Amino acid sequence: MVGGGRGAFIGAVHRTAAAIDGEIDLVCGAFSSTAEKSKASGEDLMIAPDRCYGDFKEMIQKEKRRKDRIDAVSIVTPNHMHFAPAKMALENGFHVICDKPVTFTLSEARKLKDLVEKTGLTFALTHNYTGYPMVKQARHLVKSGVLGKIRKVVVEYPQGWLAFLEEKRGYKQAEWRTDPKRSGIAGAVGDIGTHAENLAEYITGLKITEMCADVSTFVEGRLLDDDANILLHFDSGAKGILHCSQISNGDENNLYIRVYGELGSVHWGQLEPNTLIHKSQEFQHIYRPSVGNLCPEAKANIRLPSGHPEGYLEAFANIYRNFARTVRKRINGETPTEIELDFPTIDDGIRGMQFVETVIASGKSNSKWVKFKS
Amino acid sequence: MVGGGRGAFIGAVHRTAAAIDGEIDLVCGAFSSTAEKSKASGEDLMIAPDRCYGDFKEMIQKEKRRKDRIDAVSIVTPNHMHFAPAKMALENGFHVICDKPVTFTLSEARKLKDLVEKTGLTFALTHNYTGYPMVKQARHLVKSGVLGKIRKVVVEYPQGWLAFLEEKRGYKQAEWRTDPKRSGIAGAVGDIGTHAENLAEYITGLKITEMCADVSTFVEGRLLDDDANILLHFDSGAKGILHCSQISNGDENNLYIRVYGELGSVHWGQLEPNTLIHKSQEFQHIYRPSVGNLCPEAKANIRLPSGHPEGYLEAFANIYRNFARTVRKRINGETPTEIELDFPTIDDGIRGMQFVETVIASGKSNSKWVKFKS
Amino acid sequence: MVGGGRGAFIGAVHRTAAAIDGEIDLVCGAFSSTAEKSKASGEDLMIAPDRCYGDFKEMIQKEKRRKDRIDAVSIVTPNHMHFAPAKMALENGFHVICDKPVTFTLSEARKLKDLVEKTGLTFALTHNYTGYPMVKQARHLVKSGVLGKIRKVVVEYPQGWLAFLEEKRGYKQAEWRTDPKRSGIAGAVGDIGTHAENLAEYITGLKITEMCADVSTFVEGRLLDDDANILLHFDSGAKGILHCSQISNGDENNLYIRVYGELGSVHWGQLEPNTLIHKSQEFQHIYRPSVGNLCPEAKANIRLPSGHPEGYLEAFANIYRNFARTVRKRINGETPTEIELDFPTIDDGIRGMQFVETVIASGKSNSKWVKFKS
Amino acid sequence: MVGGGRGAFIGAVHRTAAAIDGEIDLVCGAFSSTAEKSKASGEDLMIAPDRCYGDFKEMIQKEKRRKDRIDAVSIVTPNHMHFAPAKMALENGFHVICDKPVTFTLSEARKLKDLVEKTGLTFALTHNYTGYPMVKQARHLVKSGVLGKIRKVVVEYPQGWLAFLEEKRGYKQAEWRTDPKRSGIAGAVGDIGTHAENLAEYITGLKITEMCADVSTFVEGRLLDDDANILLHFDSGAKGILHCSQISNGDENNLYIRVYGELGSVHWGQLEPNTLIHKSQEFQHIYRPSVGNLCPEAKANIRLPSGHPEGYLEAFANIYRNFARTVRKRINGETPTEIELDFPTIDDGIRGMQFVETVIASGKSNSKWVKFKS
Repeated sequence: MVGGGRGAFIGAVHRTAAAIDGEIDLVCGAFSSTAEKSKASGEDLMIAPDRCYGDFKEMIQKEKRRKDRIDAVSIVTPNHMHFAPAKMALENGFHVICDKPVTFTLSEARKLKDLVEKTGLTFALTHNYTGYPMVKQARHLVKSGVLGKIRKVVVEYPQGWLAFLEEKRGYKQAEWRTDPKRSGIAGAVGDIGTHAENLAEYITGLKITEMCADVSTFVEGRLLDDDANILLHFDSGAKGILHCSQISNGDENNLYIRVYGELGSVHWGQLEPNTLIHKSQEFQHIYRPSVGNLCPEAKANIRLPSGHPEGYLEAFANIYRNFARTVRKRINGETPTEIELDFPTIDDGIRGMQFVETVIASGKSNSKWVKFKS
Repeated sequence: MVGGGRGAFIGAVHRTAAAIDGEIDLVCGAFSSTAEKSKASGEDLMIAPDRCYGDFKEMIQKEKRRKDRIDAVSIVTPNHMHFAPAKMALENGFHVICDKPVTFTLSEARKLKDLVEKTGLTFALTHNYTGYPMVKQARHLVKSGVLGKIRKVVVEYPQGWLAFLEEKRGYKQAEWRTDPKRSGIAGAVGDIGTHAENLAEYITGLKITEMCADVSTFVEGRLLDDDANILLHFDSGAKGILHCSQISNGDENNLYIRVYGELGSVHWGQLEPNTLIHKSQEFQHIYRPSVGNLCPEAKANIRLPSGHPEGYLEAFANIYRNFARTVRKRINGETPTEIELDFPTIDDGIRGMQFVETVIASGKSNSKWVKFKS
Repeated sequence: MVGGGRGAFIGAVHRTAAAIDGEIDLVCGAFSSTAEKSKASGEDLMIAPDRCYGDFKEMIQKEKRRKDRIDAVSIVTPNHMHFAPAKMALENGFHVICDKPVTFTLSEARKLKDLVEKTGLTFALTHNYTGYPMVKQARHLVKSGVLGKIRKVVVEYPQGWLAFLEEKRGYKQAEWRTDPKRSGIAGAVGDIGTHAENLAEYITGLKITEMCADVSTFVEGRLLDDDANILLHFDSGAKGILHCSQISNGDENNLYIRVYGELGSVHWGQLEPNTLIHKSQEFQHIYRPSVGNLCPEAKANIRLPSGHPEGYLEAFANIYRNFARTVRKRINGETPTEIELDFPTIDDGIRGMQFVETVIASGKSNSKWVKFKS
Repeated sequence: MVGGGRGAFIGAVHRTAAAIDGEIDLVCGAFSSTAEKSKASGEDLMIAPDRCYGDFKEMIQKEKRRKDRIDAVSIVTPNHMHFAPAKMALENGFHVICDKPVTFTLSEARKLKDLVEKTGLTFALTHNYTGYPMVKQARHLVKSGVLGKIRKVVVEYPQGWLAFLEEKRGYKQAEWRTDPKRSGIAGAVGDIGTHAENLAEYITGLKITEMCADVSTFVEGRLLDDDANILLHFDSGAKGILHCSQISNGDENNLYIRVYGELGSVHWGQLEPNTLIHKSQEFQHIYRPSVGNLCPEAKANIRLPSGHPEGYLEAFANIYRNFARTVRKRINGETPTEIELDFPTIDDGIRGMQFVETVIASGKSNSKWVKFKS
């Protein structure tokens, strides 16, 4: 693991996600910016001291030489520190699982894609919300045609935790996420807008082709956007709305998507992730994990009988588990199944970076429609 | 009553709304396009045959001469037939309550406003959704300052009943609403978008100043828009999204609004109109009719103890009741209270027509932002 | 109308319910205990002064002699004053619609039943909750067999409005409902327990045969029960639970029922009366008014398109409308349809009184099971 | 770990729960009834082959002699095989965490209690539903007095998975749970009724003193109860209802509790475990993890920021984590905090066994009230 030292939020999430199914062992890490801090964090995690490294370079070099070397590297640093360790890991033969957005810039993402293709290694991106089984069932319903042709997509991701200038109040999570040097050109758009974009494209199988964005920074003194309202056009002719916000005071983490086809619609929200609504003029149906006959992709990502709620960590774990199984198969020279391959890849990373750059460009543009950057 | 003959939907709603509180008597009408049909409809309603008129002109002329003449005229015809009867009623000294949108064009609406001002008569517009007590409580919370300065408004009105070409299947409600000759330049935007606009401005007290609209007709063969996604700017600097749709298959009549201020937000939807959520980083609170201490405007518009759900007709009736009480006070030379005056007026009608014209103009424009027409 | 003077709650509900559909005209009444008060109340309601009577006897005698005499009498007095006016109305040829519980004692109810049978007149009891269209759909699902044999019924009716000694704080509604002289032997059990019992038997078509009741008075100084927890056995072998309470502080008017059959279950609650859930191991389905294909009994009791919420008053109005149509048909010598006859009758009234007497008896008994009184 | 071999449900849950926080390592086990099967299961779990034992006796004896011996034993076998390994583990100095119900009979439970007291070892029982943070907040609200004196408790646990005779269809989970030889004298009452009882006593701090139970077996051919409806009396004078069912077709795992005090009530359900409602006549408030200021016990059991749903496994993990921290403190000679000690103990186990025996006795009795066995 690169990053995820004491006090980091997403590092702990990755570790739990990796631990839940008992298929992955965390055995080494470059958890912090100094060897000392890294060792301290490693000690908390019961990692052998000689495998707590001072930085990712040391880690990759030393691990490479071990007989019991790691199979894959998990990268959980802030955005600006994804590219270098990912590149080096791939170049040295390690599979990679990386937090999103994949890199600091689009061109870095493109370089990673080249490397992934060249090396044939596995690269997973933790767009964790696609790990929810009911998201997979929604995608299945779209794909199966029961909704008919898709006409409209409404996806939203309002949060309220940055309603005040938290980055000046010593809130570590807020600091780097609102810092252009560590987050890149976008704030909310990169942090959560990309999740919304990824979810919409994952469920519908459609691609955004152009957009019209109204990007705002509401909190005085903030350096990056904290709100964006965006009109979307998709490649199929479908239209849509995407809005994301970190100043929607009172909203928790309310990722919600509605996909309307000619024949019906699906409705899913992350706050009650175990409920998927499928509605039409004729009926309203609820899908729930382990109730009735779900699609194989959904079933494969459920651990418990009906009525035993699984949440955020389990969805995150689904990304890790599928990644791990794919890596294991490939290490063993086997071919992973479609269900095992069901995790976001470098291509999702590139879409995400294109999305970020397009939103920011559209926000600054006086033209109504701005083509999706490619 | 002008309009509302057999088979009309909104005419029946108006009649029930007027009847609920026993403060209004329906005693005459020009219910249909011919005297014969009008009499037939009047008979169903137990109206004296000599007061079932062939058209609104006859009605206004004859009623004017009666000693027991009516006090007010209710206009429930399709959009293109609002202006003439409203004008004539006002010119002949009758108060008017009229279905929305107020007229066929903005310029007609302006003429009515002049007449209302000149005559001093009462003109109510049935933007019925503002009649819900929890909407009034939401407005109160905004006004009271507990939300702080408003930053963002998300208002949406998805319906699914026009997902197919109903206007060619003999569905009367669909026919006139999608017919430019009877509905005007807009379909969904005029029919329901105006409700969303009115609700947003009612609750927040803000005015839309410019917008960017993506207006669509999804159903082949349809003559007017059936979907619109709109970015909004408000006079205070607040931003927003308004989307309305009649092709959102599976959605019923899902008017929903969220208003985010610096300090918190309110969330209200018409499908569960007796629940208002007030949330912040610190708490989540539910307001319900007759629970705890609501604002006087909310209380005045509730008829029942807590847990006895009131719905669409009761909210509609609130518009009628406040209108009736205002008219009665004015007839008696008294001054209506603010609570009695709490119904939409000709000014809301003009805003609505401006909204329609701006959305349609923006939809056709390549400019990102189009100023709110005035 | 007998009762329902100024300040009465249920009288106003009855009047609105009767007015909603424009099929019933309120033209006379004995609204209060003195002629003077009755006239004052009548004036509020725009009733001709000569038809505001001093008491029900005067009303029935004088109306009987009028050419434009009323067809039916509505009785909305406290429980102890139902029997006398109902009896006299029936004896003098008037149809009767009466608030519940039908009488003060079971023996009075039996006498009314004899009279109804002898006279052939129509007698309706306002167990209004059976007026909701989704309740009718639930009954239809049970009857149609899709739930299989019914195994278990859980029906509950918690309210919180009597959590304190309101009857000593000048709350008129609380006073008579907790006064044995006006309410009879039961408080919450009679006031709301009977609604729960009626709803359970209406939906399932089953009859309670024996019960085990734990009846409590939690508020010190109260003269009647304010809470009851009851185990039920039904004639088919089904089992159940009924609990009702007026001290469930925080609950509004939360009548809720669940009916479990071998093959699935239905779930309905009065707070969101437009949603009926039908669930099994295989699926979870939502029924909503005007969505898809409902049973004829449900459809006939809906006034609005989907997504336009109807509430308590509309359900109440359904009882009135069916009663009015039945009466009209019978006056005209026609035969009412099953849908028109779908309102509670004197038989429901007798079941209700038997229920009350059995609960109170069981509450005092040391035997586990007490047979349903008959 | 004792039990939890291939195909076991609850064993996998325990393992995940133990793994989530990275504070517990599973290093050995007697997973199945034969050494061979045990090794196979251990291999799946990456357990060293020499620590996969043939039975619990071998495990305890051999582990005892190791220098790197385990600290604690987790027992996840069917009910009839809890006592022997628990006893032996305690006698040999191992802490124990055990699935519920604690033993096969009440007398066995008593013996364990004696051993726990004698040895001073830690014994945890996985009544996992008390691990939810919102349950802890509910308990806090009761304790703090904001609800006033508790009057009524309604706790219910309906499931539908045994609506058919699954035990004859090769469903392993159903087989042992409905087999008197492995489950004891009760089916649903022991399996889930004990969770309901434990939850009610945990939140309220009250003790059941007597009850009246209606215990049923609805599915023909089943050997144990599959449904129970129970009236409760508590030591404080509060009354209550507990019902549990495994034939409530359509219900998933719907543990739900309502606690009504003089001043207000709390409402919590396991299907949406991150929402706690606190209501009174004056307000309705929602508590959610990481929103606002929760009690320390709730906070300590939350891992994620607001809006990141935690579910069943996380609640289960809270029992494991608190147990592990208590054990670690005690091994280090430190004193665990109250928050670390917040897990169910042998005393809860004894209450549970008493509950089972009382319910079954009451179900067979003709007396209305049966005293809680002690």
